[in-house]
Amino acid sequence: MAVYTDVTPEELEAFLSTYEIGRLRAFKGIAEGVENSNYLLQTEAGSFILTLYEKRVNPADLPFFIGLMEHLASRGIDCPQPVRNRAGVALGTLAGRPALIATFLMGTSVRRPTAANCAALGTALAGLHKAGGDFSAFSRVNALSVPGWRPLYETAGERADTVAPGLRTLIANELAFLEARWPAGLPAGIIHADLFPDNVFFIDGRLTGLIDFYFACNDLLAYDIAICLNAWCFEPDGAYNQTKGRALIAAYQAERPLSEAEIAALPVLARGAALRFLLTRLVDWLNVPPGALVRPHDPLEYLRKLRFHRSVESPRDYGLATEHAA
Amino acid sequence: MAVYTDVTPEELEAFLSTYEIGRLRAFKGIAEGVENSNYLLQTEAGSFILTLYEKRVNPADLPFFIGLMEHLASRGIDCPQPVRNRAGVALGTLAGRPALIATFLMGTSVRRPTAANCAALGTALAGLHKAGGDFSAFSRVNALSVPGWRPLYETAGERADTVAPGLRTLIANELAFLEARWPAGLPAGIIHADLFPDNVFFIDGRLTGLIDFYFACNDLLAYDIAICLNAWCFEPDGAYNQTKGRALIAAYQAERPLSEAEIAALPVLARGAALRFLLTRLVDWLNVPPGALVRPHDPLEYLRKLRFHRSVESPRDYGLATEHAA
Repeated sequence: MAVYTDVTPEELEAFLSTYEIGRLRAFKGIAEGVENSNYLLQTEAGSFILTLYEKRVNPADLPFFIGLMEHLASRGIDCPQPVRNRAGVALGTLAGRPALIATFLMGTSVRRPTAANCAALGTALAGLHKAGGDFSAFSRVNALSVPGWRPLYETAGERADTVAPGLRTLIANELAFLEARWPAGLPAGIIHADLFPDNVFFIDGRLTGLIDFYFACNDLLAYDIAICLNAWCFEPDGAYNQTKGRALIAAYQAERPLSEAEIAALPVLARGAALRFLLTRLVDWLNVPPGALVRPHDPLEYLRKLRFHRSVESPRDYGLATEHAA
Repeated sequence: MAVYTDVTPEELEAFLSTYEIGRLRAFKGIAEGVENSNYLLQTEAGSFILTLYEKRVNPADLPFFIGLMEHLASRGIDCPQPVRNRAGVALGTLAGRPALIATFLMGTSVRRPTAANCAALGTALAGLHKAGGDFSAFSRVNALSVPGWRPLYETAGERADTVAPGLRTLIANELAFLEARWPAGLPAGIIHADLFPDNVFFIDGRLTGLIDFYFACNDLLAYDIAICLNAWCFEPDGAYNQTKGRALIAAYQAERPLSEAEIAALPVLARGAALRFLLTRLVDWLNVPPGALVRPHDPLEYLRKLRFHRSVESPRDYGLATEHAA
């Protein structure tokens, strides 16, 4: 649930007067994104999304996020395009918060992705990685890669075992494994790092765009695939769907073929991605204020996914076509 | 904050296929209304609001609400117009809830109404009362008029004094006064009963429409004016703004002149309206779950308004032009 900062129509009108998108016609808080306040704007020029950046976003990262969206849009990637004001500046201030107006992206997210959705995602993900290849104006370290996991583990501490017996030890062992075995030297660049079905829009089965770049960073490109395999290719009963994984990876490879080293690393990257979401969900789960209206995501969903990845014997288990397998 | 019921894009697509408003283009939960879940829909035919009726709305009242909106729209009142499906039915079922699609009303609410806004409101309120005059398909008793207040007082009980010392006694005295002196025989009809600034849209100072008819009922027309005087004509410091009151009442009377009996009753009706919002806010205030993210409205705002109305010596104090005063 979003919308944290209250914006009066009067201050919004004043803010909009610094842009060239016409007068305000309608303005509603929307339930999109969990980190920031988002509003739908309708102006004489059309529909836009207004984002006010809340405390969980580091203001120092905003030039990276906004520069990246502008860069990707200029490379033909369908994503929200920052709107610059009359002074040529995209990032403004409204209601005491950093504020951005971006174009409104049509489409809706799918709740139960099909193999065709996964293929469309694979194509879009490779396109994103290629388009990000020459984005060098800013960079951003992935705060939620391997070095960021141990502090989360320590924050959860012994309370991890209140969520599932033995969870603390399981995470400790997994952390030690991943810290020792995390691949180095794989192709790196801009990754989305949070490309869940919520953040991908479709109309009539056609992928119309990607949103929510607020975890984007510089990291291993194949790690983004591993995140997507976790987020898109498991069934509600916990089973990995190899057909969906194959569709995703094959469509990706048609745009950007994976190296043998990337393919070989896929099982470890998938374990890492599962641990990353297990850890952040676990910490959120343990820190819900009593009586809160927002129920956090279930961390155990990612424990089940992690267990699957630990059982994987070969990258082929993810659905890689044989000719690509290491 | 709204959006309680989760709707998947898949079930929404199936629901929309029973309407003639084209394919779905976008779909966002919006933070509007506190009683129901509201979503913005964009389809090939334009923008719409989808409402899912939650537990606080009695399903038996829905034919009244929907019939009223259709009636008012047919009489030229700017309000959300229910959209009927191919079978000619407006009320459907989605995600296990009664569901309505209505047209999207452009405009934004004002946070600090001006006298000009109050005049526009007065004109629209009189127009609403006149347009409702021949709505007889359904009727609805005002559950939050005098007979509904004593149960709220009893629900608050002694805890009222935890909000303000002496509040319980003050309410008891006020209740006794209003139960004895509530006017009978005044002109009655359809009233909105909750026409706060949130529920009135403007574009560039022009009133574009009224929303949220879910407290509408059959009651004294002048009581609706009393509610609006409370909701629109007090300053943030608690002072009554006679200029705004005069603008509201004069504009109303230009469309529907008040009878002498209605004018004479205005101070009592205004006390009643203040007590009604004091009581519902008090009960909400006392029943907030610990840690809830939603902070209820301050009941003491209406205690201050009630004190003003108790000090009023004549209807003229609300800003009635002399020639209309009783």
